[in-house]
Parts: sequence; C-alpha cells; structure tokens
Amino acid sequence: MESADAAKLPHIVVVGAGFGGLTFCQKFPAKLARITLIDRQNHHLFQPLLYQVATAGLSAVDIAQPIRAIFGSRKNFSVIMAAVTGLDLAGRRVIHERGELTYDYLVVAAGGMTSYFGHPEWEEFAPGLKTLDDALKIRRKILLAFERAETEPDPAKRDAAMTIIVVGGGPTGVELAGTFAELTRTVLNHDFDHIDPSKSRVILIEGSPRVLATYPPELSASAQRQLEKLGVEVHTGLRVEAITEGQIVAGGQTFRADNIFWGAGVAAVPLAKQLGVEADRAGRVKVLPDLSVPGHPEVFAVGDIISLVDANGVTVPGVAQGAMQAGAHAAKVIARELRGERFSPAGRAAFAYYDKGSMATIGRSSAVADIGDFEFSGFPAWVAWLAIHLIFLVGFRSKVSVLIQWVYSYFTYRRGARVISGVSGGPPAHSA
Amino acid sequence: MESADAAKLPHIVVVGAGFGGLTFCQKFPAKLARITLIDRQNHHLFQPLLYQVATAGLSAVDIAQPIRAIFGSRKNFSVIMAAVTGLDLAGRRVIHERGELTYDYLVVAAGGMTSYFGHPEWEEFAPGLKTLDDALKIRRKILLAFERAETEPDPAKRDAAMTIIVVGGGPTGVELAGTFAELTRTVLNHDFDHIDPSKSRVILIEGSPRVLATYPPELSASAQRQLEKLGVEVHTGLRVEAITEGQIVAGGQTFRADNIFWGAGVAAVPLAKQLGVEADRAGRVKVLPDLSVPGHPEVFAVGDIISLVDANGVTVPGVAQGAMQAGAHAAKVIARELRGERFSPAGRAAFAYYDKGSMATIGRSSAVADIGDFEFSGFPAWVAWLAIHLIFLVGFRSKVSVLIQWVYSYFTYRRGARVISGVSGGPPAHSA
Repeated sequence: MESADAAKLPHIVVVGAGFGGLTFCQKFPAKLARITLIDRQNHHLFQPLLYQVATAGLSAVDIAQPIRAIFGSRKNFSVIMAAVTGLDLAGRRVIHERGELTYDYLVVAAGGMTSYFGHPEWEEFAPGLKTLDDALKIRRKILLAFERAETEPDPAKRDAAMTIIVVGGGPTGVELAGTFAELTRTVLNHDFDHIDPSKSRVILIEGSPRVLATYPPELSASAQRQLEKLGVEVHTGLRVEAITEGQIVAGGQTFRADNIFWGAGVAAVPLAKQLGVEADRAGRVKVLPDLSVPGHPEVFAVGDIISLVDANGVTVPGVAQGAMQAGAHAAKVIARELRGERFSPAGRAAFAYYDKGSMATIGRSSAVADIGDFEFSGFPAWVAWLAIHLIFLVGFRSKVSVLIQWVYSYFTYRRGARVISGVSGGPPAHSA
Repeated sequence: MESADAAKLPHIVVVGAGFGGLTFCQKFPAKLARITLIDRQNHHLFQPLLYQVATAGLSAVDIAQPIRAIFGSRKNFSVIMAAVTGLDLAGRRVIHERGELTYDYLVVAAGGMTSYFGHPEWEEFAPGLKTLDDALKIRRKILLAFERAETEPDPAKRDAAMTIIVVGGGPTGVELAGTFAELTRTVLNHDFDHIDPSKSRVILIEGSPRVLATYPPELSASAQRQLEKLGVEVHTGLRVEAITEGQIVAGGQTFRADNIFWGAGVAAVPLAKQLGVEADRAGRVKVLPDLSVPGHPEVFAVGDIISLVDANGVTVPGVAQGAMQAGAHAAKVIARELRGERFSPAGRAAFAYYDKGSMATIGRSSAVADIGDFEFSGFPAWVAWLAIHLIFLVGFRSKVSVLIQWVYSYFTYRRGARVISGVSGGPPAHSA
C-alpha cells in the first residue's frame, strides 16, 4: 500500500524476487524509501528444493510463495509482474513489458540461468532445472517415459525409456541423480506390471575428477559412495562432447537414454549485459566491493548475476546464502546513505561473505555437510539438511505442508506429487 | 502385479479412471478376473473440488491421485496411461495410442466434456472446467488479468481486466462465481497498490429463470441471496447469444470482460459414438437397465457417458454419486456372472440410483444442501459440505493437506496456491 506522502520518498527499483531481491526488500527499512519489486514470475521460488519438485517429492506450490502475499501489508511497496526488457542507467529507467519505471536506486538481482557452455543446441535434448516450469517438465518427462516403457515391446527402446542421465556432479546433479535412484527403486517399483523400475539405470556424468568439486575431497568420496549405494552409476572425468535426441557422448563413450537432464552450468541472465560493465565468462558482472556497479553508485547488483572476490579475499559463491547476504548488505548501504550517515561512495562498507557451510542431500536419509570445522555425512547430515531447509522455507503453509509430505514419504516410500499435468495441449476430447 | 496363472482369468478392460471406473475397480473382487484400467491421464481427479484449484484455493496435486499409487499392490491389475482411439465391439478390442487390448468384458467410463451447445467457437473465449489443466489455465488467466490491471493506465481496459463472467448457474457456475467473489474481496484485495480488487465485478449469467435449477426453488433463492451477499451480480433468464474476445452478448445485453468462463454444459466424450447405439442430444448413450450396451451384454457403460431412467423411474444424474453407484452395480453384475450365479443377461439386476442428496458451496462458509427430507443453507450446509468432501477425497495425503489449507485459509483469508506457473513457453531468458 502507498501512503499519502509516498511520492516524496526516494524510489528504489528491485529487479528479481529471488533470494537476493527478496532479502533486500525484507531488510530495507520501510519508512526510508518507496520500493518497487519487479519479477517476470508472480512467486518467489525456494530453488534449493526445486529438484524435489522435478522428482515428484513435492508439489510446485510447496516451494513457491506469491510475492504479493509475502509483502501484502507493507507500506510504500509495489509489486509488478512483468519481464524487464531493458535498463537505461543514464536515464535511471527500467523498461518492462508494459511500461517503465524511474528510480533513485536500482538493485539488480535478476539471477542466473542454465548454461550449456557454448552449446545452446543441447538444451532441447537435455533440459536444465532453474524454474518451476523446468521442474514440472522434468517430472512429466520421467513419468511419461516409464508409462511408455510399460507398453513398449522393443527391449532396446524400453531400456532407453528406463535410463536417466544427469550431466553435472555439482549439488544439483548429485541431488537429482540420488533422488531419481530413490524414486525408481523405492516408489515406482511397486507401480508397474510389465517393467521393473528398480532395474532402471541412473547415470551421473561429471567432467572433473570428482563429484561436489567445491567440497573437501573426503566428502566428495562419501557422496560418490552414497550415490553408488543408491544405485547411481557415477562417471567422473568424462567431458560431454555431444548431445542429440536420446544420446550423449562423453569422454568417447556413448550413452543412450530417453531422459537426459542438465545440471552442469549456470550463467548470469542476459540482462546483466545491459549494465554495460566488465563480466566474466559466465556473464557475471564485476561489481565494486560495496556491490555497486562501476560508474553508477546508485546501481547495485547481487546474487548469481555478480562475480566478486569479497573483502576477505573469498570468491562469493552462487548460492542462496551469497545472494541473501549481498541483498542485506545493499539494503544497509542504501539505508545509511538515505539517513545521511554516509555520503560518499568511497566511504561505503565493503561486502564480506560469511560462510555458514554447505550441504547437499543425496537421497532418503543421505547427505554430506561441510559446516565450519565440522564435516559429516550420512543420516546426521541429512537430518541437519532437513531441519535447515525447513527453517528457511518462506511461509507458514509451505513449512507444514512440506513437513507432512516428507514425514509421509519417509515412512511410506510414496510420493504424493506423482501427477502428470499438461500432457496434451488439446481439448479434453476423444477419450478418457 | 500379475500372478502366474493370471492369463487363465477372464480379462476386463475399464476405460476411464474417473469416479465410475475407479469404483468399478475398487468394488470388483480381485480374484475373479484380470483388470486393465486405461486412462489418458495418470491420475484420478476429484472433480467436485476442481473449482478450488481454478480459484487458487487448492493446488493441483491436492485433488489428484496417481492411479498407479491407488492400486499399487493389487493382484491381477494393470494400468495403461494412453488415450483410447477406438472401440471394436465385434472383435472385442480396445485400440489405444500405443497398442490394443482384447477383452471378455468392457466397462466404458470415459466421462464427459464441456459442451458449448453447438457453438464450439466459444471455447476459445470462454474456457470450461473439466480437467486439471483447465483449472490451472483458469487460475493463470485470472491472476494474470489482475497483474495486467495493476499497470494498466486505460480505465476501460482496467475494468475489463477486473471483470469476471461465469456462464451457467448450475453447481459448477455457482461455486466458481462465489469463490471468485471471495478471492477478489478477501484475498487479492490486500495485494495491490493501484487497483482495488474488491471493486472488481463478478457476473453470473444463467439462461433459465433460477440458479441451481435442479434444486428446490427455496434453495435456489437462498443460493442467489448468498451469491449477491458475496458481491456476485446474478443475471437469470439471459440466454447467451454470442461470445467473442472479451465480450459476451446474453439476452440482448452486452458485457465486456477479459475473464469469461464456461460452466454451463456437459456432453459425453466422442468415444461414446463408437458404442454404435442410440444417444441423446448430449451424446450420452442409452444403456439397458443393467447398464449394458444394447446388443452387447459384455459391454457396460457408466457415468457421464450414459443416459438412463433407472428401475425407480429416476433419471440418473451426471454427478459423482451416479457414476460411483453405476460402477459398483456393473462390478456386482459381472462378478455374479463369473461366479456362475447368473448366466442370462435377461436375469441381470436393474440399476437403481440412490439419491444421497446434493450440495453446492457458494463461498467461504456458505452453501446449500438438499439431503433427503432436509434442506438447509448457510454455515451448517457449508460445514456438512466440507466434512463430506473430505471423507470422500481419495488418499491420506490429500485429506490432511487439503484440511490444513482450508483451515489455514479460513482463519487467514489467504490462499497458498496463488502461484502462476507456465507463464512463458520460452527459456528462462532475458530477465528476472
């Protein structure tokens, strides 16, 4: 809601309602400025659990919160659902699908997208996992492949329908592969008559010598052991050379599968280019230590769109914590400036990333965690992972609903979200 | 799972996993025959709550249960997810997308589809509500219209975006209109800055003189009063003459709205024609008193696909109860025959529909109910409606999850499922 004298306040435009943009809005003092938050989606997405939607463990709305619902009663706050089409830094304007906005401060938190390392043609055959629609597409693809296998008389075609390949041994790839193995071996295996889903192959392909390359080597080894125990074939040191319909060539070997998914690379969204400053190979812009864009102290960038070595010499990782902390930092810098505590950009505090640790889950009751001086894996890591993710899930309803589903699927090995929607584009016509 | 000597058993093919087909399978004794259940979707849909998905009160998976999960451990039972493309009654074959099945008994429970009374061109401008995808499409359309209104400078265009028209004053139309009024007045009204969703218009257009025409007149009057109290403009006695993009002409009056939905007519799916017997105007086949198809004692039809005056002279209504009771009746007749209790079709029991009563909900804490000698409306009817629908919802998870969401939205006036997915077909490209 806008108050009567809202027009007198400075105007901050925030592009993107991911972890970075959302945290900025939550941390920024409501009285100091008008904020307009713009996103092409109407929801904030809890991306760390996106792989659970893709593997039918959770339903879409469990990990998505309508942005308007999050900020419903807040003063001096507007939300626009529209795609941003251009940034005019000289004119201090944000141009979107249905109009434009002028700003006093701009916070660009537009996030990342799946990167195919210069091979955009692979996307068609190996979809990635960044949005809710991506997750629903992957779920639909897998479930339909098993439906097809059930009635497929040709053994070679049936095997291909029952083979799942995940490219990329980072957290996303490890979580996807582990959960696919679990889905086929403990959920779908009761469902079919003519095929045995527990005999399906789940293959993880990683280019570097070990999975979870950013974790300590002993946790990488533990993750690989836990994956193999679940039935995943882990191939490390295999660089992908080609992906075509139902086939992937990596390290000279050819794999055939109807289900190939890409969990390998992330790049900044193309909007980053419009900031007009130096970027790294993945398109991430090089911001100043205070997170502002060189030459534009009124423009900040946070989250997966930036590349930064922080005040302590640490490269800020492209994870939720990095985006949230950067969003909070930008909020603090701008709030101080508007209160008159700091006037010169040179006097602004530099951002320092605080590493709270990293965790990756591998399947039902398996995980690895690297928190401060503690490294642990297996069941204790999984419980820690579950607790932390529940605490951070935005919104009461999601928490309770997600908890129920997890407890339910933990004890029953079932999955409630195994519903295929959007199968046919046509009318509900000629059949059941 | 198929047992070793399953092949010796007679084979029953059931087309459609709606209330009729599902009840048949649940009631039929597992040892007497092999059953193959075929449906184009992988889920059973709890259609009476579909309007809650369309109005963002429930999420899709809350009212859908994977068919394989329902029958997971049952012996002599197969599920095929495929669209049925043809019936060959002479050859006792069901032809589907990926193969064919032969049968000893066939149960056709393929259901109904939205009917535009000879105006299929209206579908484009006034989508109906029969499938999960329909519901998600309606939800997306409404939520996007309010997003558009928020940034629309032209007052006429803004008003059109904020006007919702529901055609049809039957239970579906009444439930939709009531819930849309509630959604705009008690949920969305906190969400926007530049528009006031509580000022949006919700219009219900019915061709006959009263809403809920199959209910007693005093309940129709009560339903209309309750709708008007919620803010719905109810127009009865207005026959629809034309529907074009954003405009509807009914009873000589022109209404402009970006959101027009069709809750008026139901017809049997085109597959009904392939039974080759007499049908009514809506394509429903006229079955014999035992629910078999004339000339084919081994073929039964149940649910929205049939037209029947039952043993007591009552027209079997196209509701869940009608389909479920018919499914159970067909199961009993076939089971008796396979046990050798009845050999001649002439000796089969005739179907008699037992009216357990009807209820329609109008919004938060309003409803009408007509149960036996009792007619009631308002809050008691709503509580009865809620309890009965929870009891009938298939599957543990759905019940708990749906209950939580209802209790939550009852006390907070919020709606958890207000998430728009599938907005753009393209890649997660140039923006937030």
